[in-house]
Amino acid sequence: MPRRALGRLLELGERVAGITGWDGMDLTRKMIVVMAADHGVTEEGVSAYPAEVTGQMVRGFAAGIAAINVLSRHAGIEVRVVDMGVRSDLSDLVKAGKLTDARVGPGTRNMRRGPAMTREEAVQCIERGAAIARGAAVDGVRMLGTGDMGIGNTTPSTAIAAVAAGLDVSAIAGRGTGVDDAGLARKIAVIEESIAVNHVDSSDPLGLLSGVGGFEIGGIAGLVLGAAESRVPVVVDGVISTAGAIIAWLLEPRVGDYLFAAHRSVEKAQTAMLSLMGLEPILDLGMRLGEGTGCALAMPIIEAGAKVIRQMATFDEAGVSEA
Amino acid sequence: MPRRALGRLLELGERVAGITGWDGMDLTRKMIVVMAADHGVTEEGVSAYPAEVTGQMVRGFAAGIAAINVLSRHAGIEVRVVDMGVRSDLSDLVKAGKLTDARVGPGTRNMRRGPAMTREEAVQCIERGAAIARGAAVDGVRMLGTGDMGIGNTTPSTAIAAVAAGLDVSAIAGRGTGVDDAGLARKIAVIEESIAVNHVDSSDPLGLLSGVGGFEIGGIAGLVLGAAESRVPVVVDGVISTAGAIIAWLLEPRVGDYLFAAHRSVEKAQTAMLSLMGLEPILDLGMRLGEGTGCALAMPIIEAGAKVIRQMATFDEAGVSEA
Repeated sequence: MPRRALGRLLELGERVAGITGWDGMDLTRKMIVVMAADHGVTEEGVSAYPAEVTGQMVRGFAAGIAAINVLSRHAGIEVRVVDMGVRSDLSDLVKAGKLTDARVGPGTRNMRRGPAMTREEAVQCIERGAAIARGAAVDGVRMLGTGDMGIGNTTPSTAIAAVAAGLDVSAIAGRGTGVDDAGLARKIAVIEESIAVNHVDSSDPLGLLSGVGGFEIGGIAGLVLGAAESRVPVVVDGVISTAGAIIAWLLEPRVGDYLFAAHRSVEKAQTAMLSLMGLEPILDLGMRLGEGTGCALAMPIIEAGAKVIRQMATFDEAGVSEA
Repeated sequence: MPRRALGRLLELGERVAGITGWDGMDLTRKMIVVMAADHGVTEEGVSAYPAEVTGQMVRGFAAGIAAINVLSRHAGIEVRVVDMGVRSDLSDLVKAGKLTDARVGPGTRNMRRGPAMTREEAVQCIERGAAIARGAAVDGVRMLGTGDMGIGNTTPSTAIAAVAAGLDVSAIAGRGTGVDDAGLARKIAVIEESIAVNHVDSSDPLGLLSGVGGFEIGGIAGLVLGAAESRVPVVVDGVISTAGAIIAWLLEPRVGDYLFAAHRSVEKAQTAMLSLMGLEPILDLGMRLGEGTGCALAMPIIEAGAKVIRQMATFDEAGVSEA
């Protein structure tokens, strides 16, 4: 084709080639892993929705009626829902084979009063997430996407972003599912206090995760590490997923080569973290739903880039005259 | 979901609903119509590629080996290739059922020396394009995309953009398939002279098309009008497709309600025309290949927006607590 005439689409395909090698570029089997967990910090009133919604939404995912289900079906992407630490009892879903049990605990503790989790729990999250990625790769999944569910989880994600990027919380905090002005002010104060109380620092990513993180954020960090280790391209969704990815990236910056940013979230904290990792989002549709919904739209575009490289004829092959 | 949490995706679905009505929102059958034609103005040296490439590329489309074929197969979109006026003989492809014959002539005349086509030919292009859209709608196609092939066709498209938007040619002219600085300067001069010679004016869209247009541009204008008439959403690709769409829009501004802009082309003339019509592109991937390649990536996103509206459960249906 005329030089670079498919722009970023071609770059996406080239990045896939670099990750998988020429013979691994068939990305037909795609999976979005939706990591769910609850957050002790919700008792500070940082979310527009009550904490019980986390478990209710997981039931919606299992029933196939949520946005992530609709969009993944549309794109031919499998969805795997993982309980990393939801407060409500979802064991019936686990028994029915509709939910993976990787519970680290019944939600994190309130990070404003001390660490959200222990260092051991942080390691557990990451190991369980990595195991899920490795298992998927062994099963033949060729591209992974990250998703999240957890009422209150823009609060820890924004804390991680502020610490990782060295930015003021007030410059990057957003409204999440829709807090009002008073709620946003409260959220900013809670994040600032949580950062101060826990003495977190970007040079200690495990300490950052345990201090102001979440179980699903740790699970996503592990998923990213496990995907990279398995040479599987991994597509990151919104602000929560990007917080997980940046924990992985702080632990091992080379995972950046395996990451794709699905879309630009409305949450500014996500843009701050993407910039730090040098990632440019594929889509910019003003979305802020989470669940992996951005991945469901972007993964087919990445696959399209890979197909252009593998299937499209050159001018020479097609008998087209030279410029 | 939280209010407007899917941003533009939801807007896309809402626009589909407005066009098709609730019962017509199943957009499974999608088709990209690639309109091909040659341009007399190529004798002025405005393109990096020789004119014979138009016919060669059409043979590539018919063989299924070009970018538009790869991307449309990926997205489950049918491709229909239409000869609106290619110079070389493609009758074997027509006989084989791989090319639709809607030829208005063996390419346009050199618009720098006089009208690219007669007013009657301009009407013919539009009528043939509209007939193709109507036929597709009757056959059950529920979303149409526009594509183009025609060496030299960023030159007439930029002329149309400059006249329609009232902008200086030098401010919006681009490199097309890749002319160098001297080529770009020549192209700008040729466009300016063509506009002056033909006394074109945005108040006479048929005169604009016949003076400085192209057969495939007229075909695309007709396709847009026929789609709107049939209540079929129509997705516009790059600068050539947008030039076709703006001819339709100048003839009947209400077609704007049926149009979607697939992506932002590298060619500035496209952005100028989209702004005039109040359309915001869905994708921005630095593409400039034409053929309908942007539509192949954007049409599944529009369909996803429609599915969110039709298939996703409300909080009430899903038993999720109120904010």
